[in-house]
Amino acid sequence: MALDFLKVKTADAVVVKAPQLRQQVVEILIAVKVTRQDAEITADILVESDLRGVDSHGCGNVVGYATRIQQGTTKAQGDVRVISESPSSALITNDWGLGFAGAHTAMSMAMDKAAETGMGAVTVRDGQHIGMLMYYPLMCVRRDMIGLAMTNGAPCVRPAGGAQAMLGTNPIAFGAPAGEEPPFLYDAATSVVAMGKIGIARRLGVPLPPGWAADREGDWIKEPPAGRSPNWSLAPVGGDRVRGAHKGYGLSVMVDILCGVLSGGGYSALCREGDNHTFMLAMDISKYRPIDEFKSMMDDMIRALHATPPEPGTEKVLVAGDPEHETYLERSTRGIPLHRSIVDNMRAKAKEVRAPVLI
Amino acid sequence: MALDFLKVKTADAVVVKAPQLRQQVVEILIAVKVTRQDAEITADILVESDLRGVDSHGCGNVVGYATRIQQGTTKAQGDVRVISESPSSALITNDWGLGFAGAHTAMSMAMDKAAETGMGAVTVRDGQHIGMLMYYPLMCVRRDMIGLAMTNGAPCVRPAGGAQAMLGTNPIAFGAPAGEEPPFLYDAATSVVAMGKIGIARRLGVPLPPGWAADREGDWIKEPPAGRSPNWSLAPVGGDRVRGAHKGYGLSVMVDILCGVLSGGGYSALCREGDNHTFMLAMDISKYRPIDEFKSMMDDMIRALHATPPEPGTEKVLVAGDPEHETYLERSTRGIPLHRSIVDNMRAKAKEVRAPVLI
Repeated sequence: MALDFLKVKTADAVVVKAPQLRQQVVEILIAVKVTRQDAEITADILVESDLRGVDSHGCGNVVGYATRIQQGTTKAQGDVRVISESPSSALITNDWGLGFAGAHTAMSMAMDKAAETGMGAVTVRDGQHIGMLMYYPLMCVRRDMIGLAMTNGAPCVRPAGGAQAMLGTNPIAFGAPAGEEPPFLYDAATSVVAMGKIGIARRLGVPLPPGWAADREGDWIKEPPAGRSPNWSLAPVGGDRVRGAHKGYGLSVMVDILCGVLSGGGYSALCREGDNHTFMLAMDISKYRPIDEFKSMMDDMIRALHATPPEPGTEKVLVAGDPEHETYLERSTRGIPLHRSIVDNMRAKAKEVRAPVLI
Repeated sequence: MALDFLKVKTADAVVVKAPQLRQQVVEILIAVKVTRQDAEITADILVESDLRGVDSHGCGNVVGYATRIQQGTTKAQGDVRVISESPSSALITNDWGLGFAGAHTAMSMAMDKAAETGMGAVTVRDGQHIGMLMYYPLMCVRRDMIGLAMTNGAPCVRPAGGAQAMLGTNPIAFGAPAGEEPPFLYDAATSVVAMGKIGIARRLGVPLPPGWAADREGDWIKEPPAGRSPNWSLAPVGGDRVRGAHKGYGLSVMVDILCGVLSGGGYSALCREGDNHTFMLAMDISKYRPIDEFKSMMDDMIRALHATPPEPGTEKVLVAGDPEHETYLERSTRGIPLHRSIVDNMRAKAKEVRAPVLI
């Protein structure tokens, strides 16, 4: 749900079809020695982001991932393995390979456990960027399950009352299937906005609203900063104390406990830029009540929310996942509009690693 | 973490010791035909709230619970029973008895399942008020587990962009044990403030800040309303869209799905005043990593957060559970200060139901 003043014009867009884009990502990753299986998992997740309009987490990022592998910051073939396991739980290490591999394994394990015991939760240490968090609960939704995913990361968010970044944007994603309506799919940082919004505001030259980012004196910053620095930090959800910043802060620490402390990978303040420890949970709805009854009540709830009288200035009350679902329908038929610079960078990286250029 | 301008003066306080207060609650409930076991569970939860300074959810509420039982709105002896069950999951009905009975049973079952399989989650339908939500993750913390609790309720919160209440305050509570530090204990409504804050502001005669409550035109209300009505509603956490109200809204629906839809009890818009469907989840930390290592990292994280340089005007950065822990230490030795009117009401109800007067 992008705020209008942050929307980017797509005059410079190149439209690419999803299968072609997916194949380009696979080829680049295989060329830098990623296994076909991990390359395909990563490509699926990146393409899904582009299809759903979560452009910040789309296929363009393969250039950075490939570069990190070339530089040795990310292992081309991490040895994803189980450290401890019980019927409904597991701790795995991603072994500092591409984060997608460990995260996908974790949610797959969580779902298999859920199918056996009703639920499963797997925490992943030694991870790296895992892309659009919504993808993982979406895996559950496609198996008629409920999914919950969280990930922590390097500090850029202040605790409520604090004047220094101590927490990552520590997002939470949650999904549940409906019947005739699109699934409920929530995905949001526990910071007031995701880090990417600051960069977008800077590129567009718009001032930051109060409640987003503060300097070390606790004063709100208007001018969007050029990048991360110890001199400023995002606020938790709520922005200030009166509107619930202590609640956003608490939820952020909850994410840090489930991702960083339960896994042993480390809480946000111990994370380096690019580290992501992750928590994945799946619940088998049919173990609680018949799936058709669940979906039917989901449809009723979603329709009731859509039918809420809107406040003036709002066209219609939305439900989490609505905007991404609409974009998905459009882009899976018409193709994905990519900024020309993203296409150029992907082509250049393909040539550099001697992969075929497909877009 | 009460906002300063909402703090009540305690000049009219009567100080009562916890064991005496607990016994008074037990006697009143037994007098209206609640079983000794359910009376003791309820009393434990109410006293814990008073000890932790969560006065809105304390022993004074026994008067209302007893009245509801006398009126037949709440069953004195609900038949709490399992509807469906698997090794890590269960759906139970609270059978419209005191909500505490079903909620306590649910978290106890979730913990037993967690001890076997790594985790357990139990959802409860047909529930009523379950008191301070933090109590249930606290049960987990005392067994070296992680606990998560949620509950839904009758509508008083608008969706982001909506002009009508469609959601309860739908709170989330989460707890995790530490070693030498007090446990992390988060408990907060997914609305910008809990409903009780509006009543407190009204009693104190202070205006509501923008971002708390709006009328049907979407304009912020300054004058605290006298009670629930279709003419106003609370905002989700964040208050407005710019500060993340759509995030608070999404989390509120997540709570509604896990409590109302998964249980089949019904989402908020289907709840009557006083209904609470509930979700309880427990995780056995030792199934993931050695509990001592977990607790030691929790201590490190909590100390790092406490050591965050505070912004001007803040004395110290707090961690969720800190204020309640301090109050607990004070009140468990010095006693619990109750407003005289609460003591009077409890004494009157005890006499009315022919229970001994103990406070």
